[in-house]
Amino acid sequence: MSTWTDAFASTPALADVMSAHNLVRHMLAFEAALGLALSQAEAAPAQAGEAIAAACADLAVDEGALFADGAKASTLAIPLVKLLTAAVRARDPAAAAWVHFGATSQDVVDTALVLQLDEALTFIEADLDRLGGSAARLAETYRRAPMLGRTLLQPATPIPFGLKAAQWLAAARDCRRRLRRSASEALVVQFGGASGNLGSLGTRAEKVAARLNVLLAPARSENRGERPALPWHARRGNLAALAADLGIMVGVCAKIARDVSLMMQFEVSEATEPSKVGRGGSSAMPHKRNPVLCMFTLSAAARAPQLVATLLGAMAHEHERALGGWQAEWATLPELVKLSGAAVANMAETLAGLAVDQARMRTNLEALHGLPMTEMASLSLASKIGREEAYKTVEAAARRTVSAGGSLADALAADPRVSAHFSRAELDAVVDPAAAEGAAQTFIDLALVNWAADAASLKMDDTGTAKSQ
Amino acid sequence: MSTWTDAFASTPALADVMSAHNLVRHMLAFEAALGLALSQAEAAPAQAGEAIAAACADLAVDEGALFADGAKASTLAIPLVKLLTAAVRARDPAAAAWVHFGATSQDVVDTALVLQLDEALTFIEADLDRLGGSAARLAETYRRAPMLGRTLLQPATPIPFGLKAAQWLAAARDCRRRLRRSASEALVVQFGGASGNLGSLGTRAEKVAARLNVLLAPARSENRGERPALPWHARRGNLAALAADLGIMVGVCAKIARDVSLMMQFEVSEATEPSKVGRGGSSAMPHKRNPVLCMFTLSAAARAPQLVATLLGAMAHEHERALGGWQAEWATLPELVKLSGAAVANMAETLAGLAVDQARMRTNLEALHGLPMTEMASLSLASKIGREEAYKTVEAAARRTVSAGGSLADALAADPRVSAHFSRAELDAVVDPAAAEGAAQTFIDLALVNWAADAASLKMDDTGTAKSQ
Amino acid sequence: MSTWTDAFASTPALADVMSAHNLVRHMLAFEAALGLALSQAEAAPAQAGEAIAAACADLAVDEGALFADGAKASTLAIPLVKLLTAAVRARDPAAAAWVHFGATSQDVVDTALVLQLDEALTFIEADLDRLGGSAARLAETYRRAPMLGRTLLQPATPIPFGLKAAQWLAAARDCRRRLRRSASEALVVQFGGASGNLGSLGTRAEKVAARLNVLLAPARSENRGERPALPWHARRGNLAALAADLGIMVGVCAKIARDVSLMMQFEVSEATEPSKVGRGGSSAMPHKRNPVLCMFTLSAAARAPQLVATLLGAMAHEHERALGGWQAEWATLPELVKLSGAAVANMAETLAGLAVDQARMRTNLEALHGLPMTEMASLSLASKIGREEAYKTVEAAARRTVSAGGSLADALAADPRVSAHFSRAELDAVVDPAAAEGAAQTFIDLALVNWAADAASLKMDDTGTAKSQ
Amino acid sequence: MSTWTDAFASTPALADVMSAHNLVRHMLAFEAALGLALSQAEAAPAQAGEAIAAACADLAVDEGALFADGAKASTLAIPLVKLLTAAVRARDPAAAAWVHFGATSQDVVDTALVLQLDEALTFIEADLDRLGGSAARLAETYRRAPMLGRTLLQPATPIPFGLKAAQWLAAARDCRRRLRRSASEALVVQFGGASGNLGSLGTRAEKVAARLNVLLAPARSENRGERPALPWHARRGNLAALAADLGIMVGVCAKIARDVSLMMQFEVSEATEPSKVGRGGSSAMPHKRNPVLCMFTLSAAARAPQLVATLLGAMAHEHERALGGWQAEWATLPELVKLSGAAVANMAETLAGLAVDQARMRTNLEALHGLPMTEMASLSLASKIGREEAYKTVEAAARRTVSAGGSLADALAADPRVSAHFSRAELDAVVDPAAAEGAAQTFIDLALVNWAADAASLKMDDTGTAKSQ
Repeated sequence: MSTWTDAFASTPALADVMSAHNLVRHMLAFEAALGLALSQAEAAPAQAGEAIAAACADLAVDEGALFADGAKASTLAIPLVKLLTAAVRARDPAAAAWVHFGATSQDVVDTALVLQLDEALTFIEADLDRLGGSAARLAETYRRAPMLGRTLLQPATPIPFGLKAAQWLAAARDCRRRLRRSASEALVVQFGGASGNLGSLGTRAEKVAARLNVLLAPARSENRGERPALPWHARRGNLAALAADLGIMVGVCAKIARDVSLMMQFEVSEATEPSKVGRGGSSAMPHKRNPVLCMFTLSAAARAPQLVATLLGAMAHEHERALGGWQAEWATLPELVKLSGAAVANMAETLAGLAVDQARMRTNLEALHGLPMTEMASLSLASKIGREEAYKTVEAAARRTVSAGGSLADALAADPRVSAHFSRAELDAVVDPAAAEGAAQTFIDLALVNWAADAASLKMDDTGTAKSQ
Repeated sequence: MSTWTDAFASTPALADVMSAHNLVRHMLAFEAALGLALSQAEAAPAQAGEAIAAACADLAVDEGALFADGAKASTLAIPLVKLLTAAVRARDPAAAAWVHFGATSQDVVDTALVLQLDEALTFIEADLDRLGGSAARLAETYRRAPMLGRTLLQPATPIPFGLKAAQWLAAARDCRRRLRRSASEALVVQFGGASGNLGSLGTRAEKVAARLNVLLAPARSENRGERPALPWHARRGNLAALAADLGIMVGVCAKIARDVSLMMQFEVSEATEPSKVGRGGSSAMPHKRNPVLCMFTLSAAARAPQLVATLLGAMAHEHERALGGWQAEWATLPELVKLSGAAVANMAETLAGLAVDQARMRTNLEALHGLPMTEMASLSLASKIGREEAYKTVEAAARRTVSAGGSLADALAADPRVSAHFSRAELDAVVDPAAAEGAAQTFIDLALVNWAADAASLKMDDTGTAKSQ
Repeated sequence: MSTWTDAFASTPALADVMSAHNLVRHMLAFEAALGLALSQAEAAPAQAGEAIAAACADLAVDEGALFADGAKASTLAIPLVKLLTAAVRARDPAAAAWVHFGATSQDVVDTALVLQLDEALTFIEADLDRLGGSAARLAETYRRAPMLGRTLLQPATPIPFGLKAAQWLAAARDCRRRLRRSASEALVVQFGGASGNLGSLGTRAEKVAARLNVLLAPARSENRGERPALPWHARRGNLAALAADLGIMVGVCAKIARDVSLMMQFEVSEATEPSKVGRGGSSAMPHKRNPVLCMFTLSAAARAPQLVATLLGAMAHEHERALGGWQAEWATLPELVKLSGAAVANMAETLAGLAVDQARMRTNLEALHGLPMTEMASLSLASKIGREEAYKTVEAAARRTVSAGGSLADALAADPRVSAHFSRAELDAVVDPAAAEGAAQTFIDLALVNWAADAASLKMDDTGTAKSQ
Repeated sequence: MSTWTDAFASTPALADVMSAHNLVRHMLAFEAALGLALSQAEAAPAQAGEAIAAACADLAVDEGALFADGAKASTLAIPLVKLLTAAVRARDPAAAAWVHFGATSQDVVDTALVLQLDEALTFIEADLDRLGGSAARLAETYRRAPMLGRTLLQPATPIPFGLKAAQWLAAARDCRRRLRRSASEALVVQFGGASGNLGSLGTRAEKVAARLNVLLAPARSENRGERPALPWHARRGNLAALAADLGIMVGVCAKIARDVSLMMQFEVSEATEPSKVGRGGSSAMPHKRNPVLCMFTLSAAARAPQLVATLLGAMAHEHERALGGWQAEWATLPELVKLSGAAVANMAETLAGLAVDQARMRTNLEALHGLPMTEMASLSLASKIGREEAYKTVEAAARRTVSAGGSLADALAADPRVSAHFSRAELDAVVDPAAAEGAAQTFIDLALVNWAADAASLKMDDTGTAKSQ
């Protein structure tokens, strides 16, 4: 059964992937692979590996007891190895000596984490792709839909809504390539033994490590195949970098959620996140439609940066393995993964079903009576009467527009400093929002092209033939 | 069944108290009390309250389904109120209209949180008292046990170990009085309705609020009795202050854990945290005794400050109720409470069973051949030959002591700038650690007296007759 | 000359108070007082204290050189004491031996910090009082000015604007009493010598500490007079608590800034922060009036929680004095003080000059055609047809209001489930915003009364005769 | 004059690079380049660009006044553009209209930041290279120098000191390649105009942007040459990623500082950071040598993660340009850059001059009487008598070694469960630290080879002909 936290701060899939249950499952996968690797490297008898792997495959674990013992022992590995050893002994007494041979607790737990992260990224990348796909569609569809640009929460010059979507898209693409890269560096099998030198494996150390890597390294890892990886017990930078990239992805999602929730305010009403039966209602007010997807994303964004900070702050591991710094990761990293997965899933769903009200965008723009075009007016006028004079002239016209009604064009036309240089028709052209497109179309294309190019190269990479960078 | 995170980052009791299961239990307590308050205030028929309270008392909740629906609805209150309304209707159709009447989701959830926190503090304060009691005992027992003072991780002038313990004690006392105070301000019943003005209760609003407060306000609250409390839907400072005080308590525990784990290093071996069967072993190395209690406390300290920061950062709630800021508290605050409760429980256990090696403390002190007494030597000499000359003389003697062996007293005695002013016997007295007690006994007494005074006043307060500050 | 960071993230007064220049000034105040205390306690010759105090009073300091030497030495105290000793020697060679006698670097620097914080709080409390005063005025003035309540950034039931202001006021009051209290506990003179036991002062230790405390303890300190305070070199909880309270105050200010900036959106236009020549313009757009005071406050709120977390995270000082944990405070705490002082000054100015548009508030409320009254309608109807049926009926009416135009009252009147129980006049009364006042006036009064009561008690306290709690 | 914060939390070079003075210098570089780009793109008269560039080159700026005006205006750009416009007008009245034409404040400030960061990275990368070089030398030199491995601050199996250094090296290499990559993505010229579409430049927008990019894009940027970059006003992920990589680098440095400071404890004395006249002394204790470089690095590590969190948390910029989120970067990012630069410089200096005491390493190892070899003993014995029996046997021997003295070999030899399978000579071989090398040499080589390979490829890249990834 899922917990309440997982219900609102995770997707169901990621709650499973990052669960302690799945951690234990992967810890057993590690022990099975280690047993096989020991046998393959002739560090253990040939049949030991198979006996261990078989015992791992059907070990019955009482998780409640395991967790309690693990907390007492300070690591899940000690009670699990004990359980497993008993099971192997029952099956093949000689093989029991080789369970967990040469490994330390952190080898098991860190590698299991790597395998969980690899699974999690499959879900996260898929949602990020969906988010990007929807943003691309919005950028394309609304590339000519003018709306009010807004800066510092105040009206600015107009943009097409497609450009806003193109920025969301570009941010998603930045995340996508960062994640692929940091995953390739962080998802490295951990195997160093007690002090990180595989001391107890003697001359077989490299061979065992190589076989283990072949058996366990996930496809996303840059360290696959027969090359043993340098242990990273107390070198957490690559893991921290992956965490930071997840945290940044949450920030990207939060920016979208912020924009959508602001556009969804009753007084703005330019866009609405998709609703669903049972979602976003109010216990008190029947008329309400709350931006629930945005809400949970903004809530994630209030938490994720500090989870990243915890991981960065815990990096100063003492000597070969840490007192506290490693353990601080245990609750933090799964929480971050779930939270960031939920954020990207929520925003993927939001953009896929976003209801866009072009008419309202235009209405809101027109409600400003041309004021968003002050910059264009000011710049056009500057070439005639100088920058500061132009700025002051337009500022005055803007003020009259606000106080006396009418449009900016009217107010400008009434000023001799303007009418001396521009006919009314010229003036209307200057302050037409369509005149303010600038490089919008180029920028939209740039975002679309980059996204498409990356999607193609990542797909090629997923076949396993190309390198991840 | 407890989760793995709760196993290593909570006490069992606090895992229960802060569970979603207990949250739901207190939400029902709120709904029951609200039903009764409505009836008592004559805002609802007399029998409605009883019917609602009775339904709350035996409502069967499928928590998995509730959590899923709650996540969709963005609040646990909506599905729970729905369930409860059906149960009340089955019992008394007329009463069903009064379920949750006048309240909003946040009223239920925040008040339930307050009730959870009140329960949690009973455990936390008890552990803090145990920690303080043990620190007091150590301060008293070892008030004349000299050890090396250490600053910047280097040897400094000697102190009695009792003074170190007195500082732990003083820090615990600071926490104790802060917590009591911030709890009294934060543990306030939440009842404001949709927009925080109890709008739907009309002229009965105050009376209902007053009755609800009488029924629900915990003993720790400064707002008890017939006085309705100002709702705090979007005013989170008092809650944040309680959270900050928990975070500070974790910092206090971490300082103790840092000290103990440093003293427990093999090369220092002055103190050892208590061990237990199954605790602190190593999966690879049979000889190891790991400082597990310190470890989990340091791990908590790597996380708690960021959890506090999340709560502070989420305070800018929009308008009457927030979009994201409130929800960020849901996972953060229970985690912080559990973590800080575990930290204080761990350190209470550590100090209760701390094995202190006075002989080793003295050996480590003597290994410095008098060097920690350089300050005393320098100051004594300064009155004869001036401060800078004295400092240089002693610095040179210290350097000779390190390079050539012998004691600081030997090296000083050999320097005519010293022997001109001090006989050897005088010199030996100057650099005797016993000469360096200073105000240690006064400071130890100060910590003991403050602790005892607070303990007495809090006990009086616990009878419920005195005010909480 | 102020730095750019100080220009946008501090008030000018706090930039001065928290400057390194002022830190040095107070360090000299410490050294002067220590000299006098040594003489008064007969630990040094009578004239030594005066010579030292005189030298402190006119010491010429090359701050650039001092900072460079201080960074090398790892503390400002070492080079400053060296400078001072030379100056004292020039004046009275015998007195030079007594400069800094018995003290350690951290004594000087922490006490100087305490004196800076005491000065800073005078400014911060004054601005907090101004903020509270303005909020109180707004609460009083607009206690009957209806506006749309907004929850989750969506329309909710109406409230008077005065209630929103009353919540700001209540939050300010919470801060005010917290700050006074945490200041009284944190602003304690630091004096412990090398290892925190004043070891080098021998039997004179207490007496010197007592005199020093008499000379230096600020009025806000709970530890004034002849009682020597327990040193707090490695016990940072009280300081962290004061920092947390500042961080919470920033959160309170950010909530106000969030509300005001949202109300100031062009599409909402219910309130506007005061403008000033040269403030809030745009380099590109002459028509813009940016909410600059809100902006800097929100910017402060993005930073302050993490500064607090840094201070909490740095609390695990090693042994008697820390390696890194203390030094992390040096840049963090002044930054937090300046930032929080700027936030409260900005919001004090904002509320003092807030332009409130009651007419627009009413227009925005009416634009919802009665929808914010759905809760009232639903609750009124529930007593006739049951809660869920009522909720569904009103939900349907709300949906028709949105889709087909007209008002909620029209849509409800057209539904036989409603018209069977309510005449049109009864219905209009049910959905009149004035009917939804609830306890608003009580709550406003509560905030006003609490503020007034605290203001009176703090004023009494400021006379110095009453205790700070 | 440098500030005190810069003195202890920056290098002098980075204090200059990240100063507001240098920011203004680069802002003028932006305005000059924009003028030229406008002329080159025929968006402005040919001579306008030159006049603007000339005015930028010799503009006299009163920084105090500029900062005050900038804070009022909420951006440095407004007063600077005003100053510059006046200077251009004095030189060429017609050209004045083209100053800042098409740009918004954020374009200038963000691009100037990019140029500062590019300069800063030159220093930071150089120090990181020095740190790596020294770590490589230590790894090579001490690849056969056995020392006690330490896990959870307790003795573990032995390692060569060279392996510890190799881990420091590997971490430095991870940082190096991450920084190069994130810099290439973050250091992108910002140019979008008021709402991010260069609206006021009309059909000339792309051309102007392209020319500006040619003139300004730093060598590290992946977006060089004629390709205009997508503006990133409200898309801060790439900048946040660079910041995170700096934060991670601080964590890497802190790990080294933690290790060195623990090894430098008097009771351990295995390594000592280099000292210097005036560094690391104590104001009270002449004998002290404080690990000042480690201290400031640990202090940086207490701050940097939260600075990163602030940048991540500020990412949810509203619409086209943010209200508060952007401004939160202004003080945070320079502080992070300086702090991280200081950390890497400190650790480069520490490793360059690290005094390593091999004899003491061996003494400390031997003081354990063979206990660190329990894992080897246990594993060797396991193949004879089974894993659990072996573990228990060795645990008992270890306990006897501790309680009764003698060596682990003695205790094992005395146990018939052991002597039945191993002769004394075999036993001595089993517990010889030299037997526990494992893969240490392979791992050291791996770190050395990776470092050398990256150094070569980055050097090639620095010639400007190869791509940075």
